[in-house]
Amino acid sequence: VTTALEGLKARMQDVLSLRAASNLMGWDQQTMMPRGGAEARARHLETLAKFAHVHFVDAETARLLEKAAAETSSLPATHDDACLVRVTQRDYNLACKVPADFVAELTRLTALAHEVWAKARAENNFADFAPTLAKIMALKQQEAQYLGYSDHIYDALLDTYEPDVKTADVTAMFDTLKVDLIPLVRAISARADSVSAVPLHQPFDEAKQKAFAEMVIGHYGFDFSRGRQDRAVHPFCQSFSQSDVRITTRYDANWLSPAFFGTLHETGHAMYEQGSAPEIDAHGLGGGASLGVHESQSRLWENVVGRGRAFWQHFYPQLQATFPEQLGKVDLDNFYRAINKVAPSFIRVEADEVTYNLHIIIRFELERDLLAGKMPIGNLRDAWNAKYQEYLGIVPPTDTLGVLQDIHWSAGLVGYFPTYSMGNLLSVQLFNKAVAAHPSITTELAEGKFATLRQWMHENLYRHGRKFTPKQLISNATGEAMQSRDYMAYLKAKYSAIYGL
Amino acid sequence: VTTALEGLKARMQDVLSLRAASNLMGWDQQTMMPRGGAEARARHLETLAKFAHVHFVDAETARLLEKAAAETSSLPATHDDACLVRVTQRDYNLACKVPADFVAELTRLTALAHEVWAKARAENNFADFAPTLAKIMALKQQEAQYLGYSDHIYDALLDTYEPDVKTADVTAMFDTLKVDLIPLVRAISARADSVSAVPLHQPFDEAKQKAFAEMVIGHYGFDFSRGRQDRAVHPFCQSFSQSDVRITTRYDANWLSPAFFGTLHETGHAMYEQGSAPEIDAHGLGGGASLGVHESQSRLWENVVGRGRAFWQHFYPQLQATFPEQLGKVDLDNFYRAINKVAPSFIRVEADEVTYNLHIIIRFELERDLLAGKMPIGNLRDAWNAKYQEYLGIVPPTDTLGVLQDIHWSAGLVGYFPTYSMGNLLSVQLFNKAVAAHPSITTELAEGKFATLRQWMHENLYRHGRKFTPKQLISNATGEAMQSRDYMAYLKAKYSAIYGL
Repeated sequence: VTTALEGLKARMQDVLSLRAASNLMGWDQQTMMPRGGAEARARHLETLAKFAHVHFVDAETARLLEKAAAETSSLPATHDDACLVRVTQRDYNLACKVPADFVAELTRLTALAHEVWAKARAENNFADFAPTLAKIMALKQQEAQYLGYSDHIYDALLDTYEPDVKTADVTAMFDTLKVDLIPLVRAISARADSVSAVPLHQPFDEAKQKAFAEMVIGHYGFDFSRGRQDRAVHPFCQSFSQSDVRITTRYDANWLSPAFFGTLHETGHAMYEQGSAPEIDAHGLGGGASLGVHESQSRLWENVVGRGRAFWQHFYPQLQATFPEQLGKVDLDNFYRAINKVAPSFIRVEADEVTYNLHIIIRFELERDLLAGKMPIGNLRDAWNAKYQEYLGIVPPTDTLGVLQDIHWSAGLVGYFPTYSMGNLLSVQLFNKAVAAHPSITTELAEGKFATLRQWMHENLYRHGRKFTPKQLISNATGEAMQSRDYMAYLKAKYSAIYGL
Repeated sequence: VTTALEGLKARMQDVLSLRAASNLMGWDQQTMMPRGGAEARARHLETLAKFAHVHFVDAETARLLEKAAAETSSLPATHDDACLVRVTQRDYNLACKVPADFVAELTRLTALAHEVWAKARAENNFADFAPTLAKIMALKQQEAQYLGYSDHIYDALLDTYEPDVKTADVTAMFDTLKVDLIPLVRAISARADSVSAVPLHQPFDEAKQKAFAEMVIGHYGFDFSRGRQDRAVHPFCQSFSQSDVRITTRYDANWLSPAFFGTLHETGHAMYEQGSAPEIDAHGLGGGASLGVHESQSRLWENVVGRGRAFWQHFYPQLQATFPEQLGKVDLDNFYRAINKVAPSFIRVEADEVTYNLHIIIRFELERDLLAGKMPIGNLRDAWNAKYQEYLGIVPPTDTLGVLQDIHWSAGLVGYFPTYSMGNLLSVQLFNKAVAAHPSITTELAEGKFATLRQWMHENLYRHGRKFTPKQLISNATGEAMQSRDYMAYLKAKYSAIYGL
């Protein structure tokens, strides 16, 4: 006799296989596909998405969920099977709320919007993109109505990326952050000349960059027998199962930072994906608890570890040996300062740790108000520039360097930005907790050893995949809710030392 | 109003998308996938195969086919839409005979078998692969029962690769070939010392091998904007549409032939796939009429052209310039003789033109008897070695060089091998017809020009994809049925000259 639970697992395995095929097609499109393949690939992807959606939202899934819930009702709430039913039911409810026709309309609009946005960005003309953005926002408002919310319309969209987090939580968190961040940026800006990033801007052989970064992530614990790294225009991490997780990187032949720190960043995502317990991964509970928790790992391994002094105490001699001409005469202290230089800048993806969150806060405040209908699209560019003036002390000279820089809104990704900052806060909160549990981590980092830190993350985060909500997971791991205290203390200590504040 | 024909086309597009996803997963498995990904990949492939099968054999397909047949009944039989209905109906009849559960089971088994085979091959241990092969053969017997046959069980499987050809036809064809081939091999073997392949066995830089071969296939007409080349253990060609066709090659750093002629071989397949008319490709009539016709193109471009004197008259100076140390003192005549040296050897894919068909005859005779239950798997290795002794006068010293060398059986490809020899016969039959139509081809080859030959193949074969049966296509192209007369005449003339027989 087959139980409903077994039926549910088999059904989810099929849905996951269809999604894995989509994901492989997406990965291939950005890494391997010859350019002529684009048109057929679009057809293939459309079919795969349709089949995965239709098979998931089928009434049979609801029937299996209901029966499986009864079958698992006596299990502890943390049991894999209880979690499977609970999480899948949540996913199912969300997937069923939005009509397929609406999804198709949004997909069509954002496909067109991508071209409009890219052209407007290239031509530095926000006005050309504004009408399309208005249509997207209208559809996202509609989507929020489908999804439902009780307090703020933004809650509905935020919830799809970060379950159970409310707009009010984010607003409060960012208001607290701003109070500390804005003065810190001002204090650092006053001493801007005391740190130079010039040593990072030299010719660096790409093959050597790649070899050095892959050596480092091997020490981190990226499992190359269950993953690989390739080149792509936009770095990303994509997994097809916990046993096949791939990252991509882009190389700048004249700038050391993008490829190296980009590789560490994607490796953080990848180790999270590789860490999912195989038995939950096969039925759809692999991956991360939310975008914010996922980002905590990319930022942890990129910044808290990878831009830390201890890390470079161990690895800098090897980097110098790899690039003796470029770095032979740059000492450890100056290199460490160079990779941590803070400077208000226009482009989010190139921002340092201190200013990064201000870029995010600006986007959050604007998209929240746009969605709520509190600001007309026509005011967006001026509002963007005013906030850059207020928070970072600079005004973008062009729309290209300002309101048009990010792909997110053109792709319909509204409610996504705050998860980047949550990742930053959580990276330090989790790191501190790991160090409290295992004080040896501090000395181990200076020896190029990462097993204790990674193992703590594995036990507390990775192996659980999507079993728990972010709130449960963070509470279980750190004994408290997400907080900005640890993160601000980390920033202040680190950058006061670097800038002599 | 949507016609049934339009409905059929849309349905086939979905089926093709699911198959394209399977194919991409298969390509990726052999070129990119980290080894840890195999188990999940097997699950994914199983689902994709199931969905493609279920969607295709759905009763709705039959309904659409019936109505579309009525809608297209007044069209000429060669009209794209008439062919679409006819070919799809044939595919449908075949597919309905095999249950979806069975397809899934076979897919799962062969995905795992690939790893088992690769390991056994690497470790030179047939016994490790034998139990898996026994399971595969049992399933293939089951498949033959589902498909049905009236004379020999092997007919059922052969028909899926080479429509309308019977086991008795193949046996008769091979018996005829053997009569001519075995004495020819013996006559050549008596003069074995008159040709030396030593110049080919030297260190050849891999990057230069790759660049030279890619230069040549660019001249052949392989479209790199709609294809790519990668490394794989076993060279193959895989397409996802006529606009994305990929080939793979393996390199031997101390032997020029395998990568170069392997690349030409896969390019023949690839140009056939790239040549399908886009309008038929999108609805499932792209690709080749049969494996035999497909192989005619790989063998044409590898052997009839690529091992011909005219070809090297043009390209040999460039090869000498690429490898001056290795080939600077080897003249054209000796190089031409070297690449055409005939010698009984162990590995089929490295065999010369004369002995190649004997390798195929061995495999055919063995798999025919395995499938018919006339030989237990336990005897396979000994039977393999005995036939090599009988036909080629040599005995493989290891399983790796013997019974484990080919990927086919591990992939469930039984009934496939004879199509290689059909390809050989057709390669010369088609080439002769093209030259008869355009005598300038002979001189063009000596100038490195391939457009006339390729265009003739395009007009007569490539653009038609699977629109016609192999018999129709060959008859239309050459005015007669497949015959071995041209091929044996070609072999005798070429090798009598080389060996002074």
